[in-house]
Amino acid sequence: MSSLFKVAPFLAANSVDAFLISNLHNVRYLTGFTGSNALLLAMPDEMVFFSDPRYRLQADEQVSVKKVIATGNLFSAASAFAGKKRVKRMAVEQTTMTLAEAELLRGKFEIRAAAGVIEGLRMVKSPEEIAKIRKSVALNSEAYEQALKKARPGMREYELAAEIDYRMRRLGAEAPAFETIVASGIRSALPHAKPGPARLEKEQLLLIDMGSMLNGYASDMTRMAHFGKPPKKVRDAHDRVLEAQLAAVAAVRPGRTGAQVDKAARDVLKAAGFGEAFVHSTGHGLGLEIHEDPRIGKAGKVKLAAGMAITIEPGIYLEGWGGIRIEDTVIVTETGCEVLTRTPKELRVI
Amino acid sequence: MSSLFKVAPFLAANSVDAFLISNLHNVRYLTGFTGSNALLLAMPDEMVFFSDPRYRLQADEQVSVKKVIATGNLFSAASAFAGKKRVKRMAVEQTTMTLAEAELLRGKFEIRAAAGVIEGLRMVKSPEEIAKIRKSVALNSEAYEQALKKARPGMREYELAAEIDYRMRRLGAEAPAFETIVASGIRSALPHAKPGPARLEKEQLLLIDMGSMLNGYASDMTRMAHFGKPPKKVRDAHDRVLEAQLAAVAAVRPGRTGAQVDKAARDVLKAAGFGEAFVHSTGHGLGLEIHEDPRIGKAGKVKLAAGMAITIEPGIYLEGWGGIRIEDTVIVTETGCEVLTRTPKELRVI
Repeated sequence: MSSLFKVAPFLAANSVDAFLISNLHNVRYLTGFTGSNALLLAMPDEMVFFSDPRYRLQADEQVSVKKVIATGNLFSAASAFAGKKRVKRMAVEQTTMTLAEAELLRGKFEIRAAAGVIEGLRMVKSPEEIAKIRKSVALNSEAYEQALKKARPGMREYELAAEIDYRMRRLGAEAPAFETIVASGIRSALPHAKPGPARLEKEQLLLIDMGSMLNGYASDMTRMAHFGKPPKKVRDAHDRVLEAQLAAVAAVRPGRTGAQVDKAARDVLKAAGFGEAFVHSTGHGLGLEIHEDPRIGKAGKVKLAAGMAITIEPGIYLEGWGGIRIEDTVIVTETGCEVLTRTPKELRVI
Repeated sequence: MSSLFKVAPFLAANSVDAFLISNLHNVRYLTGFTGSNALLLAMPDEMVFFSDPRYRLQADEQVSVKKVIATGNLFSAASAFAGKKRVKRMAVEQTTMTLAEAELLRGKFEIRAAAGVIEGLRMVKSPEEIAKIRKSVALNSEAYEQALKKARPGMREYELAAEIDYRMRRLGAEAPAFETIVASGIRSALPHAKPGPARLEKEQLLLIDMGSMLNGYASDMTRMAHFGKPPKKVRDAHDRVLEAQLAAVAAVRPGRTGAQVDKAARDVLKAAGFGEAFVHSTGHGLGLEIHEDPRIGKAGKVKLAAGMAITIEPGIYLEGWGGIRIEDTVIVTETGCEVLTRTPKELRVI
């Protein structure tokens, strides 16, 4: 079935004759197409897909709407097609379309810049999408277990990151969902450290933040380990972050805002004296992209709804000491949420 | 030293007061900054770099021009700064800037859309850049040798691709320069096959196309192997592609166009009856990106110059039989070219 019914209300509400969708994630969401070059022209009575000859066979397999295979620039092809259909007012995606692309449409249509239209639809996942995220989360956890067995003091951060990515791929993931983070000792205090040549240190914290892309869907998890028995200060700090993480998970339910979920984690860390050390948001939506709406932070005004997929990942960062973050991927359900991530959240002693 | 002297001629020739550079590869080229969020505002008398607080320390280390660390949207920060400097005519990068970004500048400046300005400068590499490409090429070849030892009939394509990427990373590469291609048997006839669950087949061709990113610079290589003794038809076809590849390499020198180099390879394959089977261009420029100017194909009008880095990669693709491609990374020199790729080009029997 065509996904036109998802876009038709937007066309009607905004009095446009067509909506040209150029964000490839949005094209994939609406058509199932997984290639790297495509456009989708949604009109009140039909949806037309454009790609190039490399993708002729793939488009036949994946895309059920009308297809135009064009050589040359797809914007020119879509423009010509829309012209024949007497399109006058055309909405475009303003955070994706470049000035050079817009130039190919200028003078031919009355252009209306639109933002977040399909991204808004994408927030609530279908059962099929949730099943894919669930598999991505399970694969990610398995890759973590396999890679953690290889972690040794003295190993370079990027070597363990390479091991993690290798395990994901061997398990069938298309790619890491983002650049895998491996940080040891005081380097764990950098919230988004790139893995470098620094060596994993004994008697120190090990922070691993990793996600997989599987069948196009992202997972995201952060876990803490410690080489050797952790001192009391580390155990206590980990306990507080875990408490904050569980409080935020408990706050997730339909009708709550991202800001309310964020506050649940923040209140715990503030009470523990870590308010200043929690320097980022509590989480973010995820799906076809690793960062999607809704926002789960102070500015998160969207009300959560059953079917949304989000991360819950409070953390604390103390310069010169280290950082602790615990992150799960969760699905909002009708009564609360389901935590998809099954990897135990305790501080793992290795 | 600031790179302003590289941009000043463009400002003068186009009578603009400023050039807002938003393509991150271009920002890196001009400043050395390797982070993921930055803008560069080039004016006749100064160049100003904008980034966010996450990159404060990194910008201090990497960037020598004036720095503005801004919270919120960097385009708003750059717009405010340019307003204070009484900028009226501002050039922007039309293939990078989105409509949403342009909207933040509209009404404040007279916008001039520019294309390919910094990309044109980037074509000719400095000795330091060539040294980085050379190291990237050497690492890529070493990863190939290590991974090829693991290749076995029955292995899945994506498993060997994962092995290749793992070896790159263990050797210190930041990432693959593109999605590594592993294709066996008749699947090698797809010029840009994604590695899938298909198994490597005995008594068949194995095509591997791989590149590494090291210190920000790309390498690119394709080599052919064969499980078991190759039949005469395979050996002959490989000989013809190698002949075409060597002819194109021999055609590279300053003053020649990409079209002339392309013709050198194409003529050999046409004479061998493979004219229709060579379905892509002979090569492409590379550097901070895996695909850069100049084009090395029928439409390649740019005259080659000493210091340019390009690939030479003719190939033939016969549906239902298989494909053969041989690719090196080469540097244009004053008298011809230097082939950086040292991996032997013979059909490797494994």
